[in-house]
Amino acid sequence: MKEKLVIALGGNALQDSKGPATAEAQLDVVKRTCEYIAEIVKKGHEIAIVHGNGPQVGRILLASETAKDVTPAMPFDVCGAMSQGYIGYHIQQGLKQSLKKIGKDIPVVTLVTQMVVDKEDPGFKNPTKPIGPFYSEAEAKEMEAKGYNMKEDAGRGFRRVVASPIPSKICEIDSVNRLWNSTIVVTCGGGGIPVVETEQGLEGVAAVIDKDFAAELLAEQTGADALMILTEVEQVAINFNKPDQKNLAELTVEEAEKYIEEGHFAPGSMLPKVQAAVKFAKANPGKKAIITSLYKAVDALEGKTGTVITL
Amino acid sequence: MKEKLVIALGGNALQDSKGPATAEAQLDVVKRTCEYIAEIVKKGHEIAIVHGNGPQVGRILLASETAKDVTPAMPFDVCGAMSQGYIGYHIQQGLKQSLKKIGKDIPVVTLVTQMVVDKEDPGFKNPTKPIGPFYSEAEAKEMEAKGYNMKEDAGRGFRRVVASPIPSKICEIDSVNRLWNSTIVVTCGGGGIPVVETEQGLEGVAAVIDKDFAAELLAEQTGADALMILTEVEQVAINFNKPDQKNLAELTVEEAEKYIEEGHFAPGSMLPKVQAAVKFAKANPGKKAIITSLYKAVDALEGKTGTVITL
Repeated sequence: MKEKLVIALGGNALQDSKGPATAEAQLDVVKRTCEYIAEIVKKGHEIAIVHGNGPQVGRILLASETAKDVTPAMPFDVCGAMSQGYIGYHIQQGLKQSLKKIGKDIPVVTLVTQMVVDKEDPGFKNPTKPIGPFYSEAEAKEMEAKGYNMKEDAGRGFRRVVASPIPSKICEIDSVNRLWNSTIVVTCGGGGIPVVETEQGLEGVAAVIDKDFAAELLAEQTGADALMILTEVEQVAINFNKPDQKNLAELTVEEAEKYIEEGHFAPGSMLPKVQAAVKFAKANPGKKAIITSLYKAVDALEGKTGTVITL
Repeated sequence: MKEKLVIALGGNALQDSKGPATAEAQLDVVKRTCEYIAEIVKKGHEIAIVHGNGPQVGRILLASETAKDVTPAMPFDVCGAMSQGYIGYHIQQGLKQSLKKIGKDIPVVTLVTQMVVDKEDPGFKNPTKPIGPFYSEAEAKEMEAKGYNMKEDAGRGFRRVVASPIPSKICEIDSVNRLWNSTIVVTCGGGGIPVVETEQGLEGVAAVIDKDFAAELLAEQTGADALMILTEVEQVAINFNKPDQKNLAELTVEEAEKYIEEGHFAPGSMLPKVQAAVKFAKANPGKKAIITSLYKAVDALEGKTGTVITL
């Protein structure tokens, strides 16, 4: 059956963490990733793509802060917008090449995407997400005086921390929906550029939105049949990396919530993926979320592997 | 009459060259610019926006090169993609705010846009467009050894130079056309990310595409009624800045070509604007190109000022 899928790509789909951090090396990884994405398209599925941006936006911020005496440093929301342009461009190029190989001429386009978050989100009161370079204690104090939130990071120095709020609205959703039938849209890159609603309109804020939650919201707001979260492992597991590790082929919302409570999933890693999957399955009875690896995506769509989360 | 317009925004619409070069200061300028753009929309015209990116992509490259011992420097095509994300985001935000003030709820979206150029374009054999920071002679020699083209720049040091090829195809044109009726699209930012066609598909190259030529191509490929190039002056002039300066309200293609030949228009300034206007008027009998200032755009559309170029 042909399905309408929102695909969330994790960090390993965009760069080899052991390889060089150059844009050229990243483009090679993106091209390999796109071969797998093209296989999904070949099966007849209609897709939209959401990607993470952690390492990329980190490097943009690092370059910007390193060069700040030569040219003004960029605010973090602008760094996010820049990472959307950069990664989206690479995906456009890589995916068009892969589609060409299989004889498909489908447009691929990136939308610069803003994501509304709530000014009152508890994340803003206690920011915890570290971004950018490490600083000395003296530098950290200077930055705190300028209004930044700084935290000591496991003995390695101080880092700036920002909020990680829940996304509530995709500002460019109308364009995503208009393009869907004809076009593969890359959107909500890095979780979207976080903005808050003010009397004047939208305004950017320094925050990091989890790309899995962004993809979940996109799947809801486009009426997608399934949310597909691609990561490094083929299936979600309980007792992960322990002798009694158990991989899960199917998972109900109720079971997933129990496992979350029991602490089976690592924060910042599998936890947000399972949470996003649960949110989608709960809001869409009869529809499913799938968590699997990039390499097993087609098999998972055929029900051969992966973890399927349903209500 | 309601018209379908492609608007090309010049550097002064995006930043105050005398003000600070921060992203925050630039956003303020963009917001002011968007007040004028919203006035055009208020008159009922349908628009798409093309913007330059010279100073912005220059600063991205400068930061990237300055920080290259800390994090790998970015290739120039990726810097261009980043500038599209950055400036597009600002325009989306600024224009939505201005539209809100006049009670219009029209989507504004930025497409990351690749522009095909010809590998055999003469520009690649003799690159002349300076980009990024200044280098010493020794540094310039090192960079030349790595394959970069370097040129001495008026006694101020050495700079990297790239080609400025003519654009031939907007890769994402299909999406622009699909969105046009409902949405204000920001596209071809900085002239588009230059790519060449290879057997594998598109590949990025280091080059700068003139944003006025990009806007001209966009106007042709969208069937726009008019190409509107907004710059610092209200009208095109011959004998510019001389005692016998003469401003022009109307200009035929034939007259314009004569004035170009006589050297009335400065290269890199008014010349590409007049050339782009001539190209549009020539290819579209009965349609017009308008060159005027941002502040006089509405007046020019009503025939009160500006320079109108027709066949």
